[in-house]
Amino acid sequence: MVNIAILGFGTVGSGVYEVVTKNKEVITRKAGMEINIKYVLDLREFPDHDVNKVLTHNVEDILNDESVQVVVEVMGGVDVPYKFVKAALEKEKHVVTSNKALVAAKGPELLHIAKQKNVNFLFEASVGGGIPILRSMNRSLTADVILEVMGILNGTTNYILTEMTENGLAFDDVLKTAQELGYAEKDPTADVEGYDACRKIAILSSLAYGKTANFEEILTEGITKITKIDISYAKKCKSVIKLVGVSKNTPEGISAFVAPMLLPKEHPLSNVNGSFNAIFVKGNMVGDVMFYGRGAGSLPTASAVVSDVVAAVRHKHLHVDVDWTTEKMEILSNDHVKVKALVRIAGGEEQKQKALSVFEGGEIVTVEEAKDEFAVITAIETEKTLAEKIVQLSKDMEVRNRIRMEVSE
Amino acid sequence: MVNIAILGFGTVGSGVYEVVTKNKEVITRKAGMEINIKYVLDLREFPDHDVNKVLTHNVEDILNDESVQVVVEVMGGVDVPYKFVKAALEKEKHVVTSNKALVAAKGPELLHIAKQKNVNFLFEASVGGGIPILRSMNRSLTADVILEVMGILNGTTNYILTEMTENGLAFDDVLKTAQELGYAEKDPTADVEGYDACRKIAILSSLAYGKTANFEEILTEGITKITKIDISYAKKCKSVIKLVGVSKNTPEGISAFVAPMLLPKEHPLSNVNGSFNAIFVKGNMVGDVMFYGRGAGSLPTASAVVSDVVAAVRHKHLHVDVDWTTEKMEILSNDHVKVKALVRIAGGEEQKQKALSVFEGGEIVTVEEAKDEFAVITAIETEKTLAEKIVQLSKDMEVRNRIRMEVSE
Repeated sequence: MVNIAILGFGTVGSGVYEVVTKNKEVITRKAGMEINIKYVLDLREFPDHDVNKVLTHNVEDILNDESVQVVVEVMGGVDVPYKFVKAALEKEKHVVTSNKALVAAKGPELLHIAKQKNVNFLFEASVGGGIPILRSMNRSLTADVILEVMGILNGTTNYILTEMTENGLAFDDVLKTAQELGYAEKDPTADVEGYDACRKIAILSSLAYGKTANFEEILTEGITKITKIDISYAKKCKSVIKLVGVSKNTPEGISAFVAPMLLPKEHPLSNVNGSFNAIFVKGNMVGDVMFYGRGAGSLPTASAVVSDVVAAVRHKHLHVDVDWTTEKMEILSNDHVKVKALVRIAGGEEQKQKALSVFEGGEIVTVEEAKDEFAVITAIETEKTLAEKIVQLSKDMEVRNRIRMEVSE
Repeated sequence: MVNIAILGFGTVGSGVYEVVTKNKEVITRKAGMEINIKYVLDLREFPDHDVNKVLTHNVEDILNDESVQVVVEVMGGVDVPYKFVKAALEKEKHVVTSNKALVAAKGPELLHIAKQKNVNFLFEASVGGGIPILRSMNRSLTADVILEVMGILNGTTNYILTEMTENGLAFDDVLKTAQELGYAEKDPTADVEGYDACRKIAILSSLAYGKTANFEEILTEGITKITKIDISYAKKCKSVIKLVGVSKNTPEGISAFVAPMLLPKEHPLSNVNGSFNAIFVKGNMVGDVMFYGRGAGSLPTASAVVSDVVAAVRHKHLHVDVDWTTEKMEILSNDHVKVKALVRIAGGEEQKQKALSVFEGGEIVTVEEAKDEFAVITAIETEKTLAEKIVQLSKDMEVRNRIRMEVSE
């Protein structure tokens, strides 16, 4: 038997409790021994729940109990979890977390401590919820130079964009419904502005290329400016708009960004709808691989957390290295990143001619739903040139939006 | 440094050589040490290839060399590889294989020997080529009771069905082109009759439920009877025809089969085209997860083989248990398995009425391309009842084909 402690009894923590309890038989078989929840740390009381029997309000109970071998951190936030996780690792306890903010901010440092103490720091659930993407990056795609990672990493925004696409609804209306249904937070900023996806693509990039990507350096654009008209253009282009996190390993260096993009219907990510997530990885030997599943939710996330607990139990006496060093990853200035875009411009024939003279090699698209404007699909440009050309056009035309498009090489 | 030996220098063996050579830097980093190919076993000579320097015709050179710690078996066949793999494990060498026939026939026995000798027997590449599905089943989806596995497990047949669907071609014509392009073998039986997919769903079922599925007990139907008219019906039903391996963990027991099926366009597997493979897994906690990638080909398969070599190196002194016992898995008699089907019948109004009286609750579909017939989409039936009803109808009508349909519960 192995004793574990869960820090936090919120959405994920209660899911972990449920998974461990309900699937005891299969988990015991997979782990090779029974997993016993000895403590749950939470400041609240849960008088009507079984958890009350193992509840503690004091983290020291857990840290000082030598019989606790695995600590599960599912509290959220950065500062307090960081303190607790660090202390647990230093006490030679394995740590499992679902906390992407913690991993993005402190991952390599905590991995380093884990290595020194010959324990494991595992965080499968921090990206893609129940999708086994991180273990696949760390343990399976180990024979490849990773050339690209591209993911739909946030279920809330994917749900919103899917509803806008399928039911012709406006952003604000879908967001309101999503909040009512509990799919979106009351303060949806972290999701709709892309901050959540940004931390996840930072973690994926770090694991893909073995250095530390600073999420603060990753260009991040959300979906709040996407309108019904944008969706109409997407349909006209046989594409869908998806909020994606992208990181590419090019001869010039590593680029990374989060932004809404037009993906053609043939792209494997274009069929990922609703609150599902998916991560597409390109290796120089394996080619294209994709992982798909529930990116959030209590039980799917808890499933990934518990699978990490099982892994920790199986590797109780073996630290398994993760190829993520503290060395800083140079991220290419976005100026040099090559993009294509759909640029929406108010006006008619005259403006079209002007726009095409600026966007040489561009192509005009129009939609029924907006007769007072048109769009140019640009040729491939650098972000810098694209931005400059938009500034130039804006001098005597109204540029209404611009959405990046997938550039396949 | 760790020495490895490759048994067989065919499609996969030469791919392994190429991956290890070209990606030396990243592989060394991931494995924590350099991987050196000390021997390649093949009966042929390769005078113009670097491999000639490490070539041997005698397996004893490898088995008797204590410095060889990992043996890669990529020969194909069952009897000879079995002898070599068993001998290597008994000499306490880790073994990695891409050989699905070997794994389906001898997997649990070889795993047992590996456990006794404290080494690892790894076979990621035997299912889904480069797709990291087996490690995900063994190491990631360990907190779940697996309820269903469903996969497009054979690239050749998926290529053929995709071409038939997208270009309106007949089976024989596409097969001929596929053979010319090297996508299909000269003797395509194992692929087009579903035998290859059958071994793969047997391996997946064994790993999903922890017992040994005997592939000979799995109902297997190929795609040779699929015609252009069938494809027309699929389109009419907003579906595609895919050859799938399915295994379900139901309250009545485990069912498994390989057959062409009509999948609705919303099904995640319906968008998997060309020679790509994908495996869909449903867990009781994680929900739906899908894995997608190249199911065959020299380099994608070799990528999976080498990732197993890296795993073996990382676990040099630790046997990691695989939840696959020698205990026989009871597979439900197919009679009891619930299906729905599209049944094509020659005739007009009179026959329709008769057919509907037999297939109560059925629904008629017709297509422009075949005006002398119609099809019934049946209600959900057991395989046995379905077969009996078809026999009954066949007494005074011509039943032209029947294709199973996805039953989601």
